[in-house]
This record gives sequence, structure tokens and C-alpha cells, in this order.
Amino acid sequence: MRFRYPNGKLYTSKKKASSLPSTHNGNRGMRLEDDINESIAYYRREKLAVIHKKPTPVQIVNVDYPARSRAKITEAYFRQASTTDYNGVYRGCYLDFEAKETRQKQSFPFKNFHEHQLQHLADVDEQQGCAFLILRFAESDEIFVMKASVFVQLKERSERKSLQKQVIAENSIAVPSGFIPPIDFLPAVDRLFY
Amino acid sequence: MRFRYPNGKLYTSKKKASSLPSTHNGNRGMRLEDDINESIAYYRREKLAVIHKKPTPVQIVNVDYPARSRAKITEAYFRQASTTDYNGVYRGCYLDFEAKETRQKQSFPFKNFHEHQLQHLADVDEQQGCAFLILRFAESDEIFVMKASVFVQLKERSERKSLQKQVIAENSIAVPSGFIPPIDFLPAVDRLFY
Repeated sequence: MRFRYPNGKLYTSKKKASSLPSTHNGNRGMRLEDDINESIAYYRREKLAVIHKKPTPVQIVNVDYPARSRAKITEAYFRQASTTDYNGVYRGCYLDFEAKETRQKQSFPFKNFHEHQLQHLADVDEQQGCAFLILRFAESDEIFVMKASVFVQLKERSERKSLQKQVIAENSIAVPSGFIPPIDFLPAVDRLFY
Repeated sequence: MRFRYPNGKLYTSKKKASSLPSTHNGNRGMRLEDDINESIAYYRREKLAVIHKKPTPVQIVNVDYPARSRAKITEAYFRQASTTDYNGVYRGCYLDFEAKETRQKQSFPFKNFHEHQLQHLADVDEQQGCAFLILRFAESDEIFVMKASVFVQLKERSERKSLQKQVIAENSIAVPSGFIPPIDFLPAVDRLFY
């Protein structure tokens, strides 16, 4: 089954997705979240870091308890998350990040980031956690890891509605797209924060 | 509205709960989760730590999109969480904990802890995060903060189905129940991990 999350991202259940040919969306499709999820699963398996994606927040209104079967939620609504999607621990350091991608070719729209996400990352920064963004240009499959604090500074200084790719490249670490893990972002975290 | 989560905990919507007289469950009721939530909100407000409770994981099966109103989830099920309920950052350190309470008076049943939660805390420990438990005896309102690794050792050595309160007291930090915040557990974290 497929539906859209409030952020516009299309949800496809795993079963359905895996039955689609892998070229369905093309190699340049929007698939950052899947790649991140695979990468953090790899990191956990290899005991390199313990990072999890947070569950989608849902406001539960009604639950049925059918006889002899498990509780069924019959009415619920998506809630706005108050944090980022990912956090965890890596060699003693608290990591917290948001992963976003765009189909635009030359710049990354600021509107992809919610104010409360950037505020949360600023709060993390203040507690000496490692707060960063993973930015992907889907068309060219270019991936950048940027300190959240640097992103916020660039956003505040900018008079545009988006951040140019060149500026991103100059202020972040480029991460090649790979196979296992699909996005190996921990070396970039090392360079940015250690 | 009220329903039971898979862990047996009774859910009461905020609105209903706050309209109940505060003595409804008595002072010795099961209210650890509310107290922790208030405490971490206090820590965030005072910029002492950034800790959030993770959303309840839900498997979404069907969503309706009524015209001119927001998406409504019409079929969903509770999923088993793969981590603990709480994590965050405190002065650069990654914190991860589970909070449990019991109505038993002299010992804390091991069955209150799922294997995957203890495994997750062990993984966090290995990444040099601060993994701990907040244990509350509801009847006496006694609260203890214990390193997860110590709890696991005691559990492995034990031939009982529960951990005696005296053993807990000897291997943890007692935290007095207070008002603002209701459970001030950060000083115990300082003593255990710094």
C-alpha cells in the first residue's frame, strides 16, 4: 500500500516496494531515507554506532480490541515531530541529524527545513552534541554532510530562498554514494566534529 | 479516552487526565511516565539537557484523505519498540534510559524489562553512551537510578525472578521525588557516569 506522509513523502510498504523492479524510480529517484536506514542498520550490525530512526509521531484517538486478536487503532492522526528523525551514539558522542533531498539541481530550498527541526539541532549543539544535516541532490546523487550550526548561519546570512550547491560544497563534507553502506557518513562526522 | 498500550500501561488522553482530581490515583499511583515527561520538559526549558520521549511505534496500514480535512489513519497496529523510550544529550554525553515502576513492595520483577531493551542499552554502553534505568517502587514512591550494565550483571547472577529492593538500593542512586522537576535524575547521572 502507498500513502503520503504529511511532509509529502510517499510511503510504500516494504513488501510492495521490494516487488517493484529496482529501476522503477530510476537511480536518481528520491530514496535518501531508505539509504540512511540501511546505513544505520549496517553501523549497528558492525557495532560502529547505535543510531535509530524515530517512529512517525501519531496522535491515537480510538482503539478497538477485537476478541482473540491484537489491538487495532481505528482512528489516529499524524502529528508534527518536535525533533529530527535520527539520533544515536557514536564513540561516546551524541549524534542528531536530519536528512533531506531535493530534485533541484543547483540549490537546496530552505523550505525543506522546519523551524522546529533547526531549533532542536541548535539545542543539541548547545548541549555539545553533534548536530548535522545530510543533504542530497537527487538528480546528480551528490551527498553533503554539514554542521547544523553552519547551515543556520548560512541561512541567516542569505537573502535567497535556497542555498546554492557551490556554497554547500564549500562548507560541508561530500560523501560518495556507495553500496554497503549506501551512505557512509560517519567519516564525515569524524572530520566535522573531532 | 483511555486504552491500554501493548505493555499494559493505561493510556488516558491529556485532556481527560487533567480534568481528574489529582488524588484520583492517590499519591502512590502509577505515574512514573508523566513525572519523567515533566522532568525532561523542565530540563529542556532550563537548557540543562535535551531529552525526548520517542513516539509510540505504530504500523500504519490504511489512511483516508477526506476532502478538505487532514489525513486520517483508519487502520494501524502497535509495534514492538526496538529501543528504549527515552534518549538525548546532556553536556556532550549521550543518555539512554528506560523508566519502569512496580506495585510490588520488596522487589522489582525482571519481566518488566524486555530483552531487546536491555540489548539496546548494552549496545549504547559499548558506544560509551550513558545507559541507565529509572526504577520506581510505586507504593513507597522510592526512585532509583541504576547503570544498565549493573542491572544486567545483577540479573544474570540472580536466581530469582525479581531484584530485591535492598540490592537495588545498594547498587544505585536514590532520587527523592520532588515538585519541579518531579524526578531530578541528572545529579544521579553525574554521580554514576562522571
